[in-house]
Amino acid sequence: MSATVFSYTQLVHFTEQVFLSMGCSPVHAALATKTLLSADLRGIDSHGVARLSGYVRLWQAGRINATPNIAITHETPSTAVVNGDAGLGLVVAPFAMEVAMKKAENVGTGWVTVKNSNHFGIAGYHAMMALEKDMIGIAMTNASALVAPTFSVEKMLGTNPIAVAIPAGDQPAFVADLATTTAANGKLEILQRKNAETPLGWVQDQEGGHSTDAHILKKGGALLPLGSDREHGSHKGYALGSVVDIFSAVLSGASYGPWAPPFPAYIPLPDNMPGEGLGHFLGAMRIDAFRTADEFKWHMDNWITRFRAAKPIAGQEKVLIPGDPEREMTTIRLETGIPLVAAVLDDLLQVGKLFGVNL
Amino acid sequence: MSATVFSYTQLVHFTEQVFLSMGCSPVHAALATKTLLSADLRGIDSHGVARLSGYVRLWQAGRINATPNIAITHETPSTAVVNGDAGLGLVVAPFAMEVAMKKAENVGTGWVTVKNSNHFGIAGYHAMMALEKDMIGIAMTNASALVAPTFSVEKMLGTNPIAVAIPAGDQPAFVADLATTTAANGKLEILQRKNAETPLGWVQDQEGGHSTDAHILKKGGALLPLGSDREHGSHKGYALGSVVDIFSAVLSGASYGPWAPPFPAYIPLPDNMPGEGLGHFLGAMRIDAFRTADEFKWHMDNWITRFRAAKPIAGQEKVLIPGDPEREMTTIRLETGIPLVAAVLDDLLQVGKLFGVNL
Repeated sequence: MSATVFSYTQLVHFTEQVFLSMGCSPVHAALATKTLLSADLRGIDSHGVARLSGYVRLWQAGRINATPNIAITHETPSTAVVNGDAGLGLVVAPFAMEVAMKKAENVGTGWVTVKNSNHFGIAGYHAMMALEKDMIGIAMTNASALVAPTFSVEKMLGTNPIAVAIPAGDQPAFVADLATTTAANGKLEILQRKNAETPLGWVQDQEGGHSTDAHILKKGGALLPLGSDREHGSHKGYALGSVVDIFSAVLSGASYGPWAPPFPAYIPLPDNMPGEGLGHFLGAMRIDAFRTADEFKWHMDNWITRFRAAKPIAGQEKVLIPGDPEREMTTIRLETGIPLVAAVLDDLLQVGKLFGVNL
Repeated sequence: MSATVFSYTQLVHFTEQVFLSMGCSPVHAALATKTLLSADLRGIDSHGVARLSGYVRLWQAGRINATPNIAITHETPSTAVVNGDAGLGLVVAPFAMEVAMKKAENVGTGWVTVKNSNHFGIAGYHAMMALEKDMIGIAMTNASALVAPTFSVEKMLGTNPIAVAIPAGDQPAFVADLATTTAANGKLEILQRKNAETPLGWVQDQEGGHSTDAHILKKGGALLPLGSDREHGSHKGYALGSVVDIFSAVLSGASYGPWAPPFPAYIPLPDNMPGEGLGHFLGAMRIDAFRTADEFKWHMDNWITRFRAAKPIAGQEKVLIPGDPEREMTTIRLETGIPLVAAVLDDLLQVGKLFGVNL
């Protein structure tokens, strides 16, 4: 596939102008841009600038408030509920993570659940905010229902990611960021563009049968929970995705399960939504609320070094630490730029035209 | 397979006598029994009374202290580190969970990491302690290394379970309790007894190749992380198992990764253990630290009812809520008793003989 390469700075400038044109404050436009493009830097192309037009369309549909009054509506020393006021998740979630970290400073840990928000980009960005403060960061979100629980034909859950960022010493941080499905939706999108089939175990058809059709979601099919089928533990992926849904949305008062608001603006909101908007769950744990940061980091380095040295299977890659591929991609893309496939570029040019912004 | 059925009360009496004979206090013997047998009631036969002889052998080997001085060694308002003093995890983990719940009462949530412990039975038991206090309970533990990370020949992680218990209203509680592997070790043990093969994707051989041999762990093979292979997301199961290891053992000062102390007493302790004993991580979140318990429970009932009503795949089971099968099994086994296969019964009779206790 042909791709045009843009520097990170070019995409930052363009994206910021778009958010400003939507009416975001300069601070929010800069933050939303940084959050969104962290996905492109980390190589998670489905969640970065490729989604910008989606946010614009949600704003056009009146589902995103560009000037939200993001506020704490309930709190205890270690917890809070944040109302995102229908703002961009890209700015609502960092607000909530700051609250969590402040609480962790005060009482050891902080846990914040968020309602009335929108798509927050990659979970890893929010979890990683904790690293520079010597805290462990945790981030989850619910999302549009694309996933069928074990034994279900119906789509009931989003790809509901879990991210955990853990500081180390001389070694780079441990950063896990995973959809609770076998394959993230972004991987399907890549196969769709190539007109290629999925491996067995990624999706099911409209009757719950086996499928390798990368377009099956548009035909009533569904993504499968991590584990693929009952025999290989799909009930575990389903349970993990459910925990993310409940922590993010039932605990906060957001709309959960099959009622989660869809990302594509052309899909109508579900009837009888039981809560407000999308939900997130953010956590921060101060390392020295458990043991000294120096001691902990020494052992994390030891952990990472030992795992990296695990004997690899002949002919396969070496054993990786969660976060390795994304960190390496960030280095590459900051140096050589971010490639955009033609479909994404066309989409961005349309967005630029709408607001009179050049890419 | 032939099985002999015992009432729950019979097994309680026998198990308690065994723990008392090891020198446990009456309070500890009763608690350890309740924790251990919760597995048999819930149908997780691999983690219940079938393990009693394993605990006895660890005690004989001097690796379990029957009269531990379990103590908090560090704390903040929302966190604590507990030193289990080499006690039974079956009593150490409930102590730690009580500390977590006390902290949740005070500041909204409580998070306790534990070092110098031993196998704690099923994670679900500890998580479920939170339910009656209108709290969400979380429990994790690291364990003997039986699992190969993605691309690794070497076994680096335990089956490292995650349990999350969430209260509901009229509906029974949501209780997820899952090993972060495709199949728990207990499922292998069942196949071993039947001389049956495993499905593909549960285990790998000593070179990291495909295997369906249920005995492969004794031949240098390994269990696979949830996801089975890279294409189906095994890097996610590996990341989740790693998070459990780090929260349970690196954060607490227990021995982590391939250095986790093995459960079978005949396996020597690893050289250069970087910490003390096994580690656990327990968490409690007060529901009303986020929203009123009544409101939350109404929405959990709504969540559960909607998921149960999801359209099922023709010819398959109805859609289940995590915890459904275990709760139904508990009802059955309290009424009709707990079946023990011949190998387990023989083992228990040997233990009984050792201490002069009749089953």
